[in-house]
Amino acid sequence: MASMLFEHTTLGQRVLFGTGKAAEHVAAEIARLSATRPMVIAAEPERALAEAATTGTTPVLWWDDVVQHVPVEVADRARAAATEHSVDAIVCVGGGSTTGLAKAVALTTGIPVIAVPTTYAGSEATNVWGMTEDRTKTTGVDEKVLPVSVVYDAQLSRTLPVGLSVASGLNGLAHCIDSLWAPKADPINQAMALEGARALNLALRGIVADPDDLTAREQALYGCYLAAVAFASAGSGLHHKICHVLGGTFDLPHAQTHATVLPYVLAFNAPAVPELAARLATALGQNLAEGQDAAVGAVYALNVLREAVDAPTRLSDYGFTADGLPEAVERIVKAAPASNPVAVTVENITGLLTEALTGATPSPAVLTTV
Amino acid sequence: MASMLFEHTTLGQRVLFGTGKAAEHVAAEIARLSATRPMVIAAEPERALAEAATTGTTPVLWWDDVVQHVPVEVADRARAAATEHSVDAIVCVGGGSTTGLAKAVALTTGIPVIAVPTTYAGSEATNVWGMTEDRTKTTGVDEKVLPVSVVYDAQLSRTLPVGLSVASGLNGLAHCIDSLWAPKADPINQAMALEGARALNLALRGIVADPDDLTAREQALYGCYLAAVAFASAGSGLHHKICHVLGGTFDLPHAQTHATVLPYVLAFNAPAVPELAARLATALGQNLAEGQDAAVGAVYALNVLREAVDAPTRLSDYGFTADGLPEAVERIVKAAPASNPVAVTVENITGLLTEALTGATPSPAVLTTV
Repeated sequence: MASMLFEHTTLGQRVLFGTGKAAEHVAAEIARLSATRPMVIAAEPERALAEAATTGTTPVLWWDDVVQHVPVEVADRARAAATEHSVDAIVCVGGGSTTGLAKAVALTTGIPVIAVPTTYAGSEATNVWGMTEDRTKTTGVDEKVLPVSVVYDAQLSRTLPVGLSVASGLNGLAHCIDSLWAPKADPINQAMALEGARALNLALRGIVADPDDLTAREQALYGCYLAAVAFASAGSGLHHKICHVLGGTFDLPHAQTHATVLPYVLAFNAPAVPELAARLATALGQNLAEGQDAAVGAVYALNVLREAVDAPTRLSDYGFTADGLPEAVERIVKAAPASNPVAVTVENITGLLTEALTGATPSPAVLTTV
Repeated sequence: MASMLFEHTTLGQRVLFGTGKAAEHVAAEIARLSATRPMVIAAEPERALAEAATTGTTPVLWWDDVVQHVPVEVADRARAAATEHSVDAIVCVGGGSTTGLAKAVALTTGIPVIAVPTTYAGSEATNVWGMTEDRTKTTGVDEKVLPVSVVYDAQLSRTLPVGLSVASGLNGLAHCIDSLWAPKADPINQAMALEGARALNLALRGIVADPDDLTAREQALYGCYLAAVAFASAGSGLHHKICHVLGGTFDLPHAQTHATVLPYVLAFNAPAVPELAARLATALGQNLAEGQDAAVGAVYALNVLREAVDAPTRLSDYGFTADGLPEAVERIVKAAPASNPVAVTVENITGLLTEALTGATPSPAVLTTV
């Protein structure tokens, strides 16, 4: 047993989970807050979902001016409207941008937020806010922006297309796996991350088999919730640093980059954390046989899942070429967390990225001999 | 996959975990609260531990009038003293009674509590308070009594004798296992409970092998913390209802009763919750073989652990006799939660208790045919 040294902050929040229960749960939370002047934030395409989720409450204000990345001017307009209408609770129905706008309003006004997510973004479970001004994104952490309650209803995510569901779910899985060794990883957020991985493994297979399988969509919401809780606590690990470089400097697409790179990072780190690797393999549905190498088992389990959901397999499909390797490697080596379980070098990151570029079968045996 | 319908309240709290770090962590939390007039609550036998844990802070008040079950008069005296000394933070160092007194003070004064547990009681992780007046215990739930921070330091539990450590750890394990099917069980508290069981399995074996093994004692503190978090959220299940009857009506000893009854309740319920049983088996270190019955595997895993730590095996060793069976069964059938995964009857609870009385090897195969 290894010694444990950590600080862990558990964020207080209520989760109300139930398919077809959104309206009932939202009304109950509004009542629990003794709120009488709720504001609903929902983008135009989500108007019908938002109306369905708020029958039984009487909003004093509907707000549909929702813009990606939360421009400051949009936030300021929404804040002014909330104040003008003496709003005492915000119900936000939508994806990350909608939740983000609700958080921006909460940041300056302190109005409590009830989040009703319709995607697997996970922002509803964190105290992180973000806004953009002059094309520059600012982010921060503040207790005030953490929604007091989250209402999950798989009915509301039913229309999320399979491809987007898989991409979003794999993004959640990346949050889970990277949380195992991120700078502030600890046993508590590792346990949440592994439970999230367990749920997402079931969810993604289920959604691919039948996009209308609401129990699979419940597992996706649940798994991505835990992914967000774990990741917000553990911070960005090697995987997210690599994807940040590939996305930021080489403009590779977000979801595909994450889905492609993840198994290579797992293969890279797993041999150094055999106990976590064994638990991840179990979470992904592959109990290790007696004496089986844990890292091999975990990578195998992830490969099996990725194949089942037809995940992208090589960066060359998204415009990355060998020419980009030296710069990418240099930036990644600089950005990699010092706490990563395997010390990064130009050589081993070159090896990792080369594998990801060409789509070689991810394997700890190959990578650890680089 | 089963459908999920639940409400889960996550309590916001900070945990600072580190062997030999108590004083540093307490000082950091006092500073974070901007407190300048801390009160230390610690019973006389824990005075030295409490002094060690609060070097670096300057208490304005030391309080050692700690009595089991928190009599109201003791709470009132401590409250008056806290007010008189303008106390702005409470540091409690000790077991359940000490934490309980700090909670009683917080209940009426709102003063934030930093808990430094020296046993595996788990009270520090809950918002439940209890006090006694005229030999009657009153309990309640209030956000104000939840310690804002918990400082865990295995050094402080080093002197807890092996027997007491095992009894206390098995009590924690009972919290974990009963949380799997308690009335408010949900996927989140089940995940916490299974992680707690995983830690306690390592902890108990380690402490029995070497009482000075501080990594094992860390796992015990960690496991009992999660047990408390899960149990406070999930509520009392069948196991605790049975033990409550055996303790309350038949005056059987608390720790031994819990340790004896637990595997029979697991054998009783596990066949009805095979997925949870499989995960529990894994948590207890027994991966199921392909095709192995999950309930059999879980009960086997618990039996192996109980044997390793020499846990008590039959109620007849503690004064319970066959004469008591009818009354005990009647009371248990009345008290059993309606949500228990196996419906209780006079017949099957008689079977369960008879097995526990005589110490028959707990086995789901036997019990499900009763």
